[in-house]
Amino acid sequence: MDKMKWMKEAVALGRNGMNRNDGGPFGCVVVKNGKVVGRGWNRVLAKNDPTAHAEIVAIRDACNNLGSYQLEGCEIYTSCEPCPMCMASIYWARPAKVYFGAQCGDAAAAGFDDAFIYRELQLPVNERSVLTEEMGREEAMPLFEEWLAKEGTELH
Amino acid sequence: MDKMKWMKEAVALGRNGMNRNDGGPFGCVVVKNGKVVGRGWNRVLAKNDPTAHAEIVAIRDACNNLGSYQLEGCEIYTSCEPCPMCMASIYWARPAKVYFGAQCGDAAAAGFDDAFIYRELQLPVNERSVLTEEMGREEAMPLFEEWLAKEGTELH
Repeated sequence: MDKMKWMKEAVALGRNGMNRNDGGPFGCVVVKNGKVVGRGWNRVLAKNDPTAHAEIVAIRDACNNLGSYQLEGCEIYTSCEPCPMCMASIYWARPAKVYFGAQCGDAAAAGFDDAFIYRELQLPVNERSVLTEEMGREEAMPLFEEWLAKEGTELH
Repeated sequence: MDKMKWMKEAVALGRNGMNRNDGGPFGCVVVKNGKVVGRGWNRVLAKNDPTAHAEIVAIRDACNNLGSYQLEGCEIYTSCEPCPMCMASIYWARPAKVYFGAQCGDAAAAGFDDAFIYRELQLPVNERSVLTEEMGREEAMPLFEEWLAKEGTELH
């Protein structure tokens, strides 16, 4: 039953944020050992930050509270299926599990581009609608050589 | 020639950040009308923030400086092909163009999961390595109905 309680809290955060005109109707909580360790709601408008989606905000909040860049053993409850940005951020944060309410297609029906971006990311770089061009690889490659030669590169 | 100048600055930011132990070897600048309006480098370790990739940090910096959640007319120069999180954040921010240095496979060879996450996002939700489960859609759906009924929902 706790699962539905956390989902309801995520929805409530999204509703409250929307009504404050902070951004779109999305909310998220991060739970560890039965306690909420991070909260987020869409703050794109309030913060002039296109990355301030509910999940990103909640992950940053949880990581800050836990003092870690990994969400080991955590569960994420989000009011809607994560967009590709948020889903990928979840891969980087490595929680144990994600629960989502509404579906990606539901967000699309309400005017959000999630499904479009999922399709775009499957295309080769030169076929995407955002113009993207490779240049200066010879300038950039030494960074990885220096990284691999560096001691203590535990970041993964 | 300016393009290479911006790319070199992105690489320099990544190198400096790596040497400060802020995070991985990635840097990014956002340029508008021939001027740098945002800078970022990987700060995952320094900030305990798994979302603090160079592009996300640079986009947030640029949007903050421009007072907008959209990067209209901006170019993004990043030392490496963006990971799915960063690439999707670029879709949300809507710059005019993206230039990247090293390729996604180069990052993978240095131990970063970008290519793996790209592949995962193409899988159906229930086949991904991050456990993901739908629940409480009936709780979440009203959020979109309320959003669509709300006036002034210009966010897209």
